Amino acid sequence: MINEGTLRRQHILKQLQSLQADACLLSSSVNLYYLNNRIYKGYCYLPCEGEAIHFVRRPLDLKAEDIGFPAGETGQKSPGSQPDQAHFHLIRKVEQIPGILRELGMPPAENLMLEGDELSYAEWTRLQQCFPNSRLINGSQALRKARSVKTPYEQSLIRRSAELHAASYRSIPRLFRPGMTDIELSIELERIMRLNGNLGLFRTYGADMDVFMGTVLTGDNALVSSPYDFALGGAGHPSNPIGPNGSPILPGHSVMIDMAGNFTGYLDDLSRCYSYGKLPEKAYKAHQVALELQDRLQERLKEGEICEDLYFFSLDFVASQGLADCFMGKNQQAGFVGHGVGLVINELPVLAPKMKDVLEAGMVLAIEPKFVVEGVGAVGIENTFVVGKNQGEKISLLEEEIIDLTNL
Amino acid sequence: MINEGTLRRQHILKQLQSLQADACLLSSSVNLYYLNNRIYKGYCYLPCEGEAIHFVRRPLDLKAEDIGFPAGETGQKSPGSQPDQAHFHLIRKVEQIPGILRELGMPPAENLMLEGDELSYAEWTRLQQCFPNSRLINGSQALRKARSVKTPYEQSLIRRSAELHAASYRSIPRLFRPGMTDIELSIELERIMRLNGNLGLFRTYGADMDVFMGTVLTGDNALVSSPYDFALGGAGHPSNPIGPNGSPILPGHSVMIDMAGNFTGYLDDLSRCYSYGKLPEKAYKAHQVALELQDRLQERLKEGEICEDLYFFSLDFVASQGLADCFMGKNQQAGFVGHGVGLVINELPVLAPKMKDVLEAGMVLAIEPKFVVEGVGAVGIENTFVVGKNQGEKISLLEEEIIDLTNL
Repeated sequence: MINEGTLRRQHILKQLQSLQADACLLSSSVNLYYLNNRIYKGYCYLPCEGEAIHFVRRPLDLKAEDIGFPAGETGQKSPGSQPDQAHFHLIRKVEQIPGILRELGMPPAENLMLEGDELSYAEWTRLQQCFPNSRLINGSQALRKARSVKTPYEQSLIRRSAELHAASYRSIPRLFRPGMTDIELSIELERIMRLNGNLGLFRTYGADMDVFMGTVLTGDNALVSSPYDFALGGAGHPSNPIGPNGSPILPGHSVMIDMAGNFTGYLDDLSRCYSYGKLPEKAYKAHQVALELQDRLQERLKEGEICEDLYFFSLDFVASQGLADCFMGKNQQAGFVGHGVGLVINELPVLAPKMKDVLEAGMVLAIEPKFVVEGVGAVGIENTFVVGKNQGEKISLLEEEIIDLTNL
Repeated sequence: MINEGTLRRQHILKQLQSLQADACLLSSSVNLYYLNNRIYKGYCYLPCEGEAIHFVRRPLDLKAEDIGFPAGETGQKSPGSQPDQAHFHLIRKVEQIPGILRELGMPPAENLMLEGDELSYAEWTRLQQCFPNSRLINGSQALRKARSVKTPYEQSLIRRSAELHAASYRSIPRLFRPGMTDIELSIELERIMRLNGNLGLFRTYGADMDVFMGTVLTGDNALVSSPYDFALGGAGHPSNPIGPNGSPILPGHSVMIDMAGNFTGYLDDLSRCYSYGKLPEKAYKAHQVALELQDRLQERLKEGEICEDLYFFSLDFVASQGLADCFMGKNQQAGFVGHGVGLVINELPVLAPKMKDVLEAGMVLAIEPKFVVEGVGAVGIENTFVVGKNQGEKISLLEEEIIDLTNL
């Protein structure tokens, strides 16, 4: 059996080779955690051949043995992958790295991959000065690709998040009290999720995609556009214009709950729609279309499908139902119908135009067909699926119809 | 009276001039919100002379009149500062900006300030291609300086956050139940803070400084070092190694609660120490030293003081009390004793070595002398202060002694 760390390293090495890079220098929390099962402030140098070398600024008391996947943690029997002392270095500043590599007899990489979407311009420039003779390559997208096919262990962590997420949502009907605002309902659900182990951390790819643990939208707040590239909007607070805004939950309104399930460090995504009493017929019809579209997409979550094809299929499907104008938003329509999940909420692949990525077994995606109905709110669904050989496997299991919060 | 937006623009223009830049192009949520009272996805071009120009990618339905500080919002009577249509442009991509500037008769800036600590390398490079003849300047630190002296309106927002923060902490003794873990106590406090209006958003300067709403540390979890540059550590979860880790709160242990108070978009910072029963004498002694040091520092939170002087004064003070080895941590000691607060938790100025910044009236800082006592936990204090002409004004008001949670 292959150790978990070895498996993940192989994912990254495959991308290194495809970009003809000789090594990469990882620096973001997400990619350090992916490769090393540990977050430190510093840099991990991974050459195409040989061991990873850890350059740690903080914590000052980190040890080599703290890094890596211990044997057995993933149910596998191979030895762990902790680095030895020669591969572990406490540093004060990045400028020490080239000298240490030289002492280890490693020539500077000719082609060095960095995280160019995550590193600030200032940091990249400083690294370029450290490696003046290296051609630096922006590997952020390649690293997202490396992470897009999940190992069995990663899948198990997302499954566990989805279970705890669904269990938390089962409390929603008993959390609701007439007269509540969207924020008040969100707070009670946040508490239940936290008590069930949610870490409260919502990691995204992309700068400034700030959101709290997720969003709750009711009534026409669901129509409000947001600056962020999430599926729906909501006015939120001016300093964080997304999500609930204190709207009272009113009879005849829907409540769309879309929180992120970070119970294990790995996120699943799950949305459910509730109602205060009966909704207009149009809302139920749109909801059924969302469920039907979800089922059609599940059939196509299989090896070999092209991401953008699934998006265009979705557009055609909702157009055939006369719902194109309110699909994924009203005043502003999100340009995707599904997205990878994992260490961040928006991993690859994305089911969106221009995305030519081919689905592979083991990718994990959230599929979220949603509609906004004026005067009511949002309806629709979101579940997390594992891409399979023949179709997707739904791993977030929970009642999918619109649940009437007053009908207990 | 000067409009709030005008006042903030003056703060930025002063920094532009000191860097000899002709214009800046703001892009981060924090700086867009600072200048415009509105977050959008896009860029705000602010020349040294003339009006700000808004290049908006999202939300698609944003209007010029949505941007800026309305007259009266800050209790002032001057007209608002909304841009007219010529200064408001929806764009699809950043490459459209130079052409629009030309149409407006504005030559490209010779020296253009960008947010080089926030923009990714990829984004910066793209902007450089848009402005091939401009010298790009990294203005991130200058913008942090611009924001460091708060306007009266900003101060009022931080004061309001501090009030609601202190009110929330008053619930802590009644939230505690014997047998609770640090995470469980944190969850109940998070809920109270959220019900009091906390937005749940913890914004930081610096990549990957992820934390939830703040931290709760008890017992020897307070000794665990973190990769992040916060005052104390805590094991947290491997995917987010900071803060509470599920430690039971035990008799004889302290509980240090350090949540961020984001009730208004502007953050205050406030820590209080609690105990389960009686603590060893050493803990009370260290706590008194922290309170004494806080008072000494408050006297020096006045115009003209140099930041690093206050840090070195603190080191001398705790050394004279025999507590240097556990000041601001044990295995890893944080290298500061205070930091600016505002739109992010770690604004300028910072009371740390090499920080030669001179204090100015209207700066707002959190002062947080803390000690870690082995076998007990952390003790000490944190409050938010406004720098004054003669001394600091404490704006977070709440009992400062160690409160015994079992003594109700």
